Amino acid sequence: MSKVYVAIIGAGGVGKAFISQLAQYASTSRRPISTILIQRSSQAVVSKDYSPIDLASWSSAPSTSPLSFPEETHRFLASCPGPVILVDNTSSAAIATHYARFLTSGISIVTPNKKAFSDSIELWDTIYAASANNGHPGAGYIFHEATVGAGLPVLSTLKELLETGDEVRRIEGVFSGTMSFLFNSFAPLSGDNGGKGFAECVSEARELGYTEPDPRDDLNGLDVARKLTILARMSGLRVKSATSFPIQSLVPKSLESVETAEAFLERLGQFDNDMKKVKEDAERGGGVTRFVGAMNVETNEVSVGLKTFDKGSAIAGLKGSDNIISFYTKRYGERALIIQGAGAGAEVTAMGVLGDLIKVLQRLK
Amino acid sequence: MSKVYVAIIGAGGVGKAFISQLAQYASTSRRPISTILIQRSSQAVVSKDYSPIDLASWSSAPSTSPLSFPEETHRFLASCPGPVILVDNTSSAAIATHYARFLTSGISIVTPNKKAFSDSIELWDTIYAASANNGHPGAGYIFHEATVGAGLPVLSTLKELLETGDEVRRIEGVFSGTMSFLFNSFAPLSGDNGGKGFAECVSEARELGYTEPDPRDDLNGLDVARKLTILARMSGLRVKSATSFPIQSLVPKSLESVETAEAFLERLGQFDNDMKKVKEDAERGGGVTRFVGAMNVETNEVSVGLKTFDKGSAIAGLKGSDNIISFYTKRYGERALIIQGAGAGAEVTAMGVLGDLIKVLQRLK
Repeated sequence: MSKVYVAIIGAGGVGKAFISQLAQYASTSRRPISTILIQRSSQAVVSKDYSPIDLASWSSAPSTSPLSFPEETHRFLASCPGPVILVDNTSSAAIATHYARFLTSGISIVTPNKKAFSDSIELWDTIYAASANNGHPGAGYIFHEATVGAGLPVLSTLKELLETGDEVRRIEGVFSGTMSFLFNSFAPLSGDNGGKGFAECVSEARELGYTEPDPRDDLNGLDVARKLTILARMSGLRVKSATSFPIQSLVPKSLESVETAEAFLERLGQFDNDMKKVKEDAERGGGVTRFVGAMNVETNEVSVGLKTFDKGSAIAGLKGSDNIISFYTKRYGERALIIQGAGAGAEVTAMGVLGDLIKVLQRLK
Repeated sequence: MSKVYVAIIGAGGVGKAFISQLAQYASTSRRPISTILIQRSSQAVVSKDYSPIDLASWSSAPSTSPLSFPEETHRFLASCPGPVILVDNTSSAAIATHYARFLTSGISIVTPNKKAFSDSIELWDTIYAASANNGHPGAGYIFHEATVGAGLPVLSTLKELLETGDEVRRIEGVFSGTMSFLFNSFAPLSGDNGGKGFAECVSEARELGYTEPDPRDDLNGLDVARKLTILARMSGLRVKSATSFPIQSLVPKSLESVETAEAFLERLGQFDNDMKKVKEDAERGGGVTRFVGAMNVETNEVSVGLKTFDKGSAIAGLKGSDNIISFYTKRYGERALIIQGAGAGAEVTAMGVLGDLIKVLQRLK
């Protein structure tokens, strides 16, 4: 089998985990894999003659002058003597806008970068129209399993349901590890969280590393909205953008422009009574409050926000910071096909990306 | 893209659902698909000139003389002018023993037939050694997702965990829709099942169509053992056969040879006290009894039988006749990657088979 070339952009937490997983995979793969580019903000390792970069020692390799993106990167990869897979391990919107150009040149892309798939529907259309996924001959493939649920088999399962002719009616779930942890601690199944208010739960989650440095980046619901946008589009809904449907932000309006995260957290407690009421209303009805995303193909609706769930439901029973995704389809009927587990973390996200890379390898002739 | 030929053996519930799903898939597939053989005990439709059989009207087509298996079938398929996928929708052990011969000739196989994969380890080795899955050039691919959990993405998920370098430590779950339904009704989470004894629950499950005609075929645990054997072997354990590890049968020894299912059910009530004790012991410890399969890669153990689960666990929370499969791995740590949903039924099983056929199509050059 002919050699496949891999180019990697971005080497943060996920990127590093990916490179180390790729090194292990490549060492046993029957198909020869040669990594020819690793580029991050602080370093560029370019193998001008397309010989393989040593994945064990790349981080201490001297930095060459970086390739400009997309111009020089595209030229370098398009001249490669064999098929190329570009791995975008950044979360950059700028990089995502150039995917189509690479795909058109036969370069495949695998990525955990949500931006390309949750920005405008025009960008989505452009990318998919340029890809081999929909049969464009000579084009590259694109896979992005890790954009929803990290390494959990969410998009691949949705794709198989659709490809085999099942009708996906709705998808519902907890798509954020942060929100999962937060509500499991604020509104546990037992009903008793030791009297902690919502603000205190947010502060604790932040100290434990479960939130972004500024928790508003989680609480605004936008991360969940991006994931829902991707799932909805894959299910055939024409979602214009990640903000074109109702999103319930848990950041009070008056605190949106508070300057620091610390000042925000200090003042969040003023709103504890509102969240307490939501929680107690749910409990009075025998349920628990959870922050979920939902889409309904039949009514063409997508939404993100708080919802009450029966205590016996799978969503209510979720633990820790796990994600859960329930697919309601014609074939599965009343009871959903459910996938559950850690939906964030460098190792499991990198696994989702490597799984995609393997899928491309299987498809490359 | 070159035409791919499909041959189908078996057209019971799953087989019919498969043919109807395939008809829909083939009508929109970019790759031309031609079904050239449909053979069941009562009918053979053979397209001698390899032109496509009409999948809408096949069942009313006049039966030609059936092809003998494996001789004539193999000769017919091996002379096909393009790549062939053999779909074995039977549950015949005899057919499974000939898989390697077809694979060696470059014919791929997709099947929900558990026999080939849960009989002797020698048969398993022979089949995989002959397949392209492990890189044998010119050979056919073999996929059997639907042998565990029907259409649920169980084997594909396990494969991806392993391929990307995760370490699977243990797998545990409810692998039988019958056992799921039975214990959800005998030992519900609430603890109160209206005082029904185990035998009454079995009779009810049978009347509702949740068991085999003779419920002992479910209660003996062998179906679960076959699925565990497949999962364990895929995880690298050298399980000799589906009966080479501890299996707790729920059929009392003295009732094994009772002649009819009805006589068995009549006498099963004599053992209700034993099951009641198991159930009450679990409840005293704050848990519920479930019939599960488990494998542990680290201790090289596989087992099938009753086990007590914490009421807050995902396994205890299972509903209806759903299956649940929990993967405990290095990357997912303490909390499992969980897949849950209907694990039986013609439509979802056929979907698993069609999903496999699509995987083969993607790999065929």
